Amino acid sequence: MTPSDKNRKVIYAKRPSGAPTTDCFALQDMPVPVPGDGQALIRNDYLSVDPYIRMRMEEKDSYAPVMAIGETLVGRTVGQVVISQIGGLAAGDWVVGRLGWQDFSVAGAADLQKIDLAAAPATAYLGALGSTGITAWVGLMTFGRPQAGETVLVSAASGAVGSVVGQLAKLQGCRAVGIAGGAAKCALVKEAFGFDDCVDYKSPRFAEELAAAVPAGVDVYFDNVGGPILDAVLPLLNNFARIPLCGLVSQYNATEPYGVKHLREIFNRRVTMRGFVLSDHKDLWPAATQALAQAYAAGKLAYRETIADGLENAPQAFIDMLDGRNVGKQLVRLRPA
Amino acid sequence: MTPSDKNRKVIYAKRPSGAPTTDCFALQDMPVPVPGDGQALIRNDYLSVDPYIRMRMEEKDSYAPVMAIGETLVGRTVGQVVISQIGGLAAGDWVVGRLGWQDFSVAGAADLQKIDLAAAPATAYLGALGSTGITAWVGLMTFGRPQAGETVLVSAASGAVGSVVGQLAKLQGCRAVGIAGGAAKCALVKEAFGFDDCVDYKSPRFAEELAAAVPAGVDVYFDNVGGPILDAVLPLLNNFARIPLCGLVSQYNATEPYGVKHLREIFNRRVTMRGFVLSDHKDLWPAATQALAQAYAAGKLAYRETIADGLENAPQAFIDMLDGRNVGKQLVRLRPA
Repeated sequence: MTPSDKNRKVIYAKRPSGAPTTDCFALQDMPVPVPGDGQALIRNDYLSVDPYIRMRMEEKDSYAPVMAIGETLVGRTVGQVVISQIGGLAAGDWVVGRLGWQDFSVAGAADLQKIDLAAAPATAYLGALGSTGITAWVGLMTFGRPQAGETVLVSAASGAVGSVVGQLAKLQGCRAVGIAGGAAKCALVKEAFGFDDCVDYKSPRFAEELAAAVPAGVDVYFDNVGGPILDAVLPLLNNFARIPLCGLVSQYNATEPYGVKHLREIFNRRVTMRGFVLSDHKDLWPAATQALAQAYAAGKLAYRETIADGLENAPQAFIDMLDGRNVGKQLVRLRPA
Repeated sequence: MTPSDKNRKVIYAKRPSGAPTTDCFALQDMPVPVPGDGQALIRNDYLSVDPYIRMRMEEKDSYAPVMAIGETLVGRTVGQVVISQIGGLAAGDWVVGRLGWQDFSVAGAADLQKIDLAAAPATAYLGALGSTGITAWVGLMTFGRPQAGETVLVSAASGAVGSVVGQLAKLQGCRAVGIAGGAAKCALVKEAFGFDDCVDYKSPRFAEELAAAVPAGVDVYFDNVGGPILDAVLPLLNNFARIPLCGLVSQYNATEPYGVKHLREIFNRRVTMRGFVLSDHKDLWPAATQALAQAYAAGKLAYRETIADGLENAPQAFIDMLDGRNVGKQLVRLRPA
């Protein structure tokens, strides 16, 4: 990097109606920022694109404020320190942080976390060992509270969060059953992530196949999608089942929300449904990080990545991910390998 | 009572499709039962008819098994002991129990609870001081967890459970807001039960009026009705709101369940929705009973009753209650006063 390098960033150009299109985003060239006292300049190597960003593209605040038009897209990155004015952080160190869709970022110590590439590849810290894995752990352990022998059902099971949930459920001695779209994803869920079973929601016999996959009913439904799949699961819940509601990806692009019909089961089965977002649970990060690192070191935490190349392709990667075209964690490589 | 007296009972004659009709019930004359060892014969004075019975008329088990055709309708009664073969229980004692829609019942000690008519009228033990009040207390205190200064919103607020919930919320230092059908019920909710406000769900401006009644948002939504009212409340919830789901009376008669569209708010606002039924919480009865008795003795627990006359009119009273024609607790007087 020299001072003449430019910093490319993706800014939020237009609010989508329904599914976002590439013209909702715009690429902008800016000067590379200069770190002040107590800051560092980071060159971002990989960018994580995540479903929650779709919610921040709405006109109305969700759990987080919406993004303003003209703002740099939010997202976590992993990269290397170029210049450091932070004690204990040196040029060449690898860090992870919420540094946005851009080549370079300036950040203070509180927004950066050093990572160890001897323990795992850099991209794992955006996925299974990072906020994705922590989301899975917090939702499952805190709100799912699985007991050995119980059945844990997970939607978007081949996705970044879902795939970790199933593996954590297995480590708890549970039966782990996934829901995913298509035979290839279902095979991956079973073979790569070790779920006991996986049901294809695109199958015309989905409801029957789902019931057959959970012969003892469902004790924990870790839901990433909401909508009609949630409706299909509700009648299969056991008494006192728990539903950690991690997202509603099926609804983010919907202009008319789906009406869920089987809420009576929440009453009948005395179910607890709990929405959660990771940022409320900073106190649990150390425990989650440790548990995930241990599982990974023991060879019990597999993950998959779908990597798009080039910042200019980040909008399309995001659009494809919302459409379920990714497998595992959707990343964008910002610097040629 | 003489041995020649007959015991009239209401039996379950036909499954309803949608709203029950009187031909779903049949009156039957039976001999008065004879208590065995460790049993007592009770003459029932008042019968409580409750929404949950509609769920037990379904073809499919809900939280409780369905009633079989030919079975005596379930329901709690208050009455007097006629013959006792139970130690500590004498003829003339007043008891409450789940003794069914009938003039006379035989029951053991475990199914009877002595009540004190010096402390409150007999019918109160079927309502505010009985399982109805306990339902309100358990749902609000255990799953609503109201904090002083919070807003507690209650549907079916003029009903037996709802009216107690609001009064308990006031005792906790909360703002209590009700939802009820019609101006008369809303006036009662405010004037007799002391809610801070009450919104008429039949108003064409319901959504606006509801929003205006909860200027600081909703922290606890104690829901008795589900359906479109739940959908109207969801966008008004505050972060970390709690929804104790006590029933879905708007849905019991529905042949096609209403689809709830705003579940995204459960995620956005990190809401906990929890279905509950009283029978799971026997351990909380003593605490609840004591709290309710104290509030009543202090003049802080008002209640209303709608009383139908005669066992033969119990089916119509039940039908009317499901249609919201009652105010407060719906009872049936079995013996002329």
